[in-house]
Amino acid sequence: MAQEFRIEHDTMGEVKVPADALYRAQTQRAVENFPISGKTLERQHIAALAQVKKAAARANEELDVLDATRSNAIQAAADEVIAGEHDAHFPIDVFQTGSGTSSNMNTNEVLATLATKALAGEGVEVHPNDHVNASQSSNDVFPTSVHVAVTSALVHELKPAMEKLAASIEAKAKEFKDIVKSGRTHLMDATPVTLGQEFGGYAAQVRYGIERIEASLPRVAEVPQGGTAVGTGINTPDGFSSRVVELLAEQTGLPITEARNHFEAQANRDGLIEVSGQLRTIAYSYMKINNDLRWMGSGPNTGLGELHIPDLQPGSSIMPGKVNPVICEAAIQAMAQVVGNDTTVALSSTNGAFELNVGIPVMAANLLESIRLIANISTVMAEKMINGLTANEERCRFLAEASPSIVTPLNKVIGYEAAAKIAKHAVANKMTVKEATIDLGFVEDGSISEEDLDKALDVSTMIGSYT
Amino acid sequence: MAQEFRIEHDTMGEVKVPADALYRAQTQRAVENFPISGKTLERQHIAALAQVKKAAARANEELDVLDATRSNAIQAAADEVIAGEHDAHFPIDVFQTGSGTSSNMNTNEVLATLATKALAGEGVEVHPNDHVNASQSSNDVFPTSVHVAVTSALVHELKPAMEKLAASIEAKAKEFKDIVKSGRTHLMDATPVTLGQEFGGYAAQVRYGIERIEASLPRVAEVPQGGTAVGTGINTPDGFSSRVVELLAEQTGLPITEARNHFEAQANRDGLIEVSGQLRTIAYSYMKINNDLRWMGSGPNTGLGELHIPDLQPGSSIMPGKVNPVICEAAIQAMAQVVGNDTTVALSSTNGAFELNVGIPVMAANLLESIRLIANISTVMAEKMINGLTANEERCRFLAEASPSIVTPLNKVIGYEAAAKIAKHAVANKMTVKEATIDLGFVEDGSISEEDLDKALDVSTMIGSYT
Amino acid sequence: MAQEFRIEHDTMGEVKVPADALYRAQTQRAVENFPISGKTLERQHIAALAQVKKAAARANEELDVLDATRSNAIQAAADEVIAGEHDAHFPIDVFQTGSGTSSNMNTNEVLATLATKALAGEGVEVHPNDHVNASQSSNDVFPTSVHVAVTSALVHELKPAMEKLAASIEAKAKEFKDIVKSGRTHLMDATPVTLGQEFGGYAAQVRYGIERIEASLPRVAEVPQGGTAVGTGINTPDGFSSRVVELLAEQTGLPITEARNHFEAQANRDGLIEVSGQLRTIAYSYMKINNDLRWMGSGPNTGLGELHIPDLQPGSSIMPGKVNPVICEAAIQAMAQVVGNDTTVALSSTNGAFELNVGIPVMAANLLESIRLIANISTVMAEKMINGLTANEERCRFLAEASPSIVTPLNKVIGYEAAAKIAKHAVANKMTVKEATIDLGFVEDGSISEEDLDKALDVSTMIGSYT
Amino acid sequence: MAQEFRIEHDTMGEVKVPADALYRAQTQRAVENFPISGKTLERQHIAALAQVKKAAARANEELDVLDATRSNAIQAAADEVIAGEHDAHFPIDVFQTGSGTSSNMNTNEVLATLATKALAGEGVEVHPNDHVNASQSSNDVFPTSVHVAVTSALVHELKPAMEKLAASIEAKAKEFKDIVKSGRTHLMDATPVTLGQEFGGYAAQVRYGIERIEASLPRVAEVPQGGTAVGTGINTPDGFSSRVVELLAEQTGLPITEARNHFEAQANRDGLIEVSGQLRTIAYSYMKINNDLRWMGSGPNTGLGELHIPDLQPGSSIMPGKVNPVICEAAIQAMAQVVGNDTTVALSSTNGAFELNVGIPVMAANLLESIRLIANISTVMAEKMINGLTANEERCRFLAEASPSIVTPLNKVIGYEAAAKIAKHAVANKMTVKEATIDLGFVEDGSISEEDLDKALDVSTMIGSYT
Repeated sequence: MAQEFRIEHDTMGEVKVPADALYRAQTQRAVENFPISGKTLERQHIAALAQVKKAAARANEELDVLDATRSNAIQAAADEVIAGEHDAHFPIDVFQTGSGTSSNMNTNEVLATLATKALAGEGVEVHPNDHVNASQSSNDVFPTSVHVAVTSALVHELKPAMEKLAASIEAKAKEFKDIVKSGRTHLMDATPVTLGQEFGGYAAQVRYGIERIEASLPRVAEVPQGGTAVGTGINTPDGFSSRVVELLAEQTGLPITEARNHFEAQANRDGLIEVSGQLRTIAYSYMKINNDLRWMGSGPNTGLGELHIPDLQPGSSIMPGKVNPVICEAAIQAMAQVVGNDTTVALSSTNGAFELNVGIPVMAANLLESIRLIANISTVMAEKMINGLTANEERCRFLAEASPSIVTPLNKVIGYEAAAKIAKHAVANKMTVKEATIDLGFVEDGSISEEDLDKALDVSTMIGSYT
Repeated sequence: MAQEFRIEHDTMGEVKVPADALYRAQTQRAVENFPISGKTLERQHIAALAQVKKAAARANEELDVLDATRSNAIQAAADEVIAGEHDAHFPIDVFQTGSGTSSNMNTNEVLATLATKALAGEGVEVHPNDHVNASQSSNDVFPTSVHVAVTSALVHELKPAMEKLAASIEAKAKEFKDIVKSGRTHLMDATPVTLGQEFGGYAAQVRYGIERIEASLPRVAEVPQGGTAVGTGINTPDGFSSRVVELLAEQTGLPITEARNHFEAQANRDGLIEVSGQLRTIAYSYMKINNDLRWMGSGPNTGLGELHIPDLQPGSSIMPGKVNPVICEAAIQAMAQVVGNDTTVALSSTNGAFELNVGIPVMAANLLESIRLIANISTVMAEKMINGLTANEERCRFLAEASPSIVTPLNKVIGYEAAAKIAKHAVANKMTVKEATIDLGFVEDGSISEEDLDKALDVSTMIGSYT
Repeated sequence: MAQEFRIEHDTMGEVKVPADALYRAQTQRAVENFPISGKTLERQHIAALAQVKKAAARANEELDVLDATRSNAIQAAADEVIAGEHDAHFPIDVFQTGSGTSSNMNTNEVLATLATKALAGEGVEVHPNDHVNASQSSNDVFPTSVHVAVTSALVHELKPAMEKLAASIEAKAKEFKDIVKSGRTHLMDATPVTLGQEFGGYAAQVRYGIERIEASLPRVAEVPQGGTAVGTGINTPDGFSSRVVELLAEQTGLPITEARNHFEAQANRDGLIEVSGQLRTIAYSYMKINNDLRWMGSGPNTGLGELHIPDLQPGSSIMPGKVNPVICEAAIQAMAQVVGNDTTVALSSTNGAFELNVGIPVMAANLLESIRLIANISTVMAEKMINGLTANEERCRFLAEASPSIVTPLNKVIGYEAAAKIAKHAVANKMTVKEATIDLGFVEDGSISEEDLDKALDVSTMIGSYT
Repeated sequence: MAQEFRIEHDTMGEVKVPADALYRAQTQRAVENFPISGKTLERQHIAALAQVKKAAARANEELDVLDATRSNAIQAAADEVIAGEHDAHFPIDVFQTGSGTSSNMNTNEVLATLATKALAGEGVEVHPNDHVNASQSSNDVFPTSVHVAVTSALVHELKPAMEKLAASIEAKAKEFKDIVKSGRTHLMDATPVTLGQEFGGYAAQVRYGIERIEASLPRVAEVPQGGTAVGTGINTPDGFSSRVVELLAEQTGLPITEARNHFEAQANRDGLIEVSGQLRTIAYSYMKINNDLRWMGSGPNTGLGELHIPDLQPGSSIMPGKVNPVICEAAIQAMAQVVGNDTTVALSSTNGAFELNVGIPVMAANLLESIRLIANISTVMAEKMINGLTANEERCRFLAEASPSIVTPLNKVIGYEAAAKIAKHAVANKMTVKEATIDLGFVEDGSISEEDLDKALDVSTMIGSYT
């Protein structure tokens, strides 16, 4: 069954386009020019492009650049694209022109086709450049769409997922608040903590991750729209920039603001690089949490064995009965991807010169993937692992009491050097710290009474009051 | 239309699986456990897994671990998977258990189902673990499959594409061999070169990139197969390891070798990290080439204007008639992705402990994507850009002669300091170097005759004989 | 001349120490254990360690852990170290124990020696652990010292230097506000901007960099002091943590705050990783600025030639009279170092497990170097380059008018497609845009009057009103 | 005491230089222009610059560019610099002009001064540019010096140190060859290995690291010398390039070769980026080894406790008796620095355009530091840790036998699914695998005899024959 084509044209001439495509010549050229990765724009990104077009149509109408008929038709078409009805008509590869001009034109063409169809009865034609793109340039539309899509993903996907994870960990912190275990520093036995305190620390890491996003959001949510080709706003009516951004904020419910400096905003994507760095910090926080969890769950018999991580699937094709911390592993791998994506985003800064960065599509793709990965991992961690964790309370306490570092409170009684002797004596002779203290004569010589020794060595008193 | 399910079981109990799925319980569990990225294993990776299974079935049969009936059925099933007939039955996310056990079991299950079906008439059942996975562990199968897939992609995709690009550039180097242009160092005017010499340099970069791959291939092509669970080869018959690797090499036509040290090979993916570094070097080479090309093509009127890059698509939605170096931009973005992917691959080294690295699936996905990106960009660069480049010969020569650095040959006649005076005088007074030389009296005072001066300043004599 | 030694001891036994060293056994062991890089702690870091010791002595005295005599002697000794009088007695390599215990003990030993000497008359001895380190652990002291040193460097060095640079660029933006030049997108000719607008964009980048630091400062300035060994505050008196941090803030004049969660703060250095990401963003901003500047300064005859960068030194040992944009190059290299340092800092997150990160010294060294590099480059850029920049106004205007993209205002009059024809016609036939418009008959056919055409093509009207 | 100055001049005019400085005007300008990091060129780098000058003087004399008197004087002066006698006269910051022109001129000036002094009696003057730099340009000298210095450091420092480390590990592998311990995959209990097998794997990693260096050495050892300003060899006599490189190889005893393509070699430092990637791979190998070692040494009572790492220094200022794996930590931090340095080196590739990369000094500094760090860490690891490691043989065996994965050999007897039941039963009921097998009736029902069971579960039979 042969595919049918129609002929479209642009300023370079004629192009054969699939007969049922909503897009036109420039999209088709781009499809042919960039057979590179097979990856196309993210769903959220397509929606954000259409949001910009809708806001622009409204502002253009208000400022008499566009008639109401065309404006309404463009807005209605944009709403369909926002809703995800035409994603299949956005076939261009991520690795395309670095300004995203191809995807901006793709949006212009799809909306022009939809609007023209809708206005067929009235015989009104809607032109991709002269109408849909009126008062705009790829150079402000495309980066604006990225900032909108990223802001949306941060606010609507990432933050709720991270909050869910934080709450899940906090619930465990509460559940584990009385489970005393050995602290570990340098991987070596240290003074005790509670498992609840450790989980409280993990939850704080996640919550501070949310703070990090919020701290950078103002510069992510700032958009160049209105600067058009080079930041000067050429071919825009007075007041367009502030109005279109106002409408965009209103439509999306996001804290989008107009660039304070249109030349900075036109030429640089530093706000994206900044937030990518914040995502990377979160990724490393998640690695730490998952590494701790899987070490505490290591065993069952040759590891630390302090935690039981829920059994989700058989762990080995050869070793029967083995179960592994698979969510931790998936999480750490996803976080390694986020770290790598961050490298790509930041390096793309070097792809800017004068009035334009030409690495925007790859920045967008990597940021949106990273946000999705962290959001999904947050949910999966909470639901499939954290919520089901159980502590091996007995083993935790046993190890806490076995740590020679519980000698530490004796510093204040007999001094650091004498205490060190006790700890070394205990380890060398496989004694408890109490036995070693007595064996070395500290009770006998009156340095400490046995009663005070018992009190000093009670691990429950060493965990302090912080949560 | 409700989806139909059947019940499968594994060592953890029962699982509902889509009725027509070739996979079974463990695959289904993994699908449910890892709703993370939506990305599944690369085509080549699935094929490589099946290659390992095929080789293992053959070796198992030879070594009396498996009967011929089951072995043949497994091999036939593997051939179908290698051919790509069942990719839809490999639905597990890249971000899964870090050993790839889920994907190994997915392969075991699909092959067991296919083989069991094929042997239905004979009433012989093929078990995913006991038969398909016999003498194997995920811990040797999965990393082996990655090394095989990567080696295959390097040898069969990357090298031919890079050779094509090198040849394309070399053809241009020949075409441009007599076009004299200004050299530029520090972006400042330098002594002349030919455009052909510059292209010869780019071609050499690409060729050295191929050398880099070849230099690292021995360690990429070394596989842990036969080490099973932890490198000791537990549950394998004598001679299995060397035989299965031999068969794998034979089947794939690739220079696959058995690990020289099975404990290194089991625990570490250093060979993959090494080759990732080589891909990164290539990525940076390609960035340089594309940056030079787009600067030489900059203009048409306000840039360097030395090269004309083929017009592929309209370049701006607002600036009419603009055409941009879009292939350069796509290439640079793709190479930024390769650099980021490399970060992910290398960082995943930290995801190893004792006998296993648990970041293998993400390493595989990133390496295979990077190879595909470089290969496709090589082809696109050659076909859509390099082959169509034309030089602005006149402008090249004009600029070559305008460079004050053409004074350099006078060093040997009148010394570096006097020559510097001439160059500065020429720039300050907008004179040619010849005019400045005369104006400063060097001809008059007999330092150099006008004839010798003309000879010394002929840019054609400054380009040397290197190509 | 033989070096003299004295014998010191610690809990492991005796050690030979240089006779005149203020430090003791543990410092000496560390010197011998870590002959690795030759780099020792940064000046600011040593000062910050002493600040912590001083604050701790004060809090210990207030809370009756330490007598006033010893407290005062420790404080006085700390003041000398803060002032830089004893840096030579901090000889330990950066690459040491990952907790910085060696450097904490180095500080304890130096202060104990100084205080003991000061109290020699009174026969009072000050012990490194029991007195100087009272209520403290390396695990809270050392990370606290890093956060203090980094906060200090950010507030006292980096911000003033960046403000100086921003002011220097802003002065040039004002000076260049009427210089019209060609905009460039994709390196290709675009619609005009003013040089002042471009410089305004650069200044905004620098100012936003300062915002980035400020946005992350709250989490950098949060310190674990008081958590002692594992975050529980073992061996501290009630109220110690809040008091010691209060005193530290008071002493340093910095916005230092107590960790909101002592377990997060003890185990993780995420705040440092976050700010490292911000430094990286600034580094990439600086790269962009310097790249633009050196391209605008390229030439003198074969490049863009829009700016003249001050001549600072001869640029070539072979090409006489050549001068290069050396400050741009130094800056870009320094920024590449900052990006690499950031990799080291962030990767060091993986060096944390349970209650301690053991990559703190390397994080500190890299962060403090990066801050120093950005601060010094800011100053050097301002003083040696930006302040001395001059514009080639004539060439800027010539190129602005030569750009075929000045056809853009015609979009609104004759439509995008017709305008594209004009632009292409102009380039193909080496005409001005005006000539091409007339040549194609748009004036003749009444599409536009010649007067309106002149107005539309006046580059002065295309630069908008943004600054 | 006031410093004395003398007046020097260059093509830009007069400069005040310290009276006793061997350098002259251009060095002094650079000192003043680049007050950035305080870091100057590495010792090896200064020596390599002088080696180039010496070889050039010899070739120039042979090819009649330089008289024997001056040539000999330059060579003698170079020998002093090579020997390290004048390092104090190389005061320029690493962050300087990106071509290293300042350091090339520094070398020219120091040698000219020394040679002129030596020839004072004869009244012969040696000029920095006309004589010392004859037939050279910074653009070939400086990158050549980096490749020579790096090659030297790789061959003379890194390889011997890595070989020492490999040998040290191999000795331990032999010592530990009969110590059976639990394997661990996913951090979970796996089938047994010997400690010797693990150490054999570590040694192989180190040895393969040496292979990686060797695989890339040909492209590191290739130098651009002879290309002068832009690769064309302008201002060199016929045959200069090949002769000077031949002499350089002879002088240094290193496998230095002439660039196969002088334009690639002039413009790109890809060979350095490649080897930096290899160093990074080694860094990650070392991280893995050190992480494993410190986990095996974790405890003494709450960790794995399989290895005893030598006690080098007290580990805590608060927890008495604590000893930490400090060499592991120093190593991991140093390796994190190598990874960051690699980022800087690779990113510096983007600092190249046309005929020159202008990020060479920062590449050199980072590569030479990384090599030194790996070399020193190799030695420190061997001498202070590996050589002194002792195994806790009893605990190793205890844990090996406690691992439920020792059920694995039963797969072949009773099938994977039945074996899984046993493993789970053992863990759930805290039985040994043998007890669980019997408890579940597998001996009673004749699936296996008790004698065969004992044989199957003997961990000594599970370790295979690989070393």
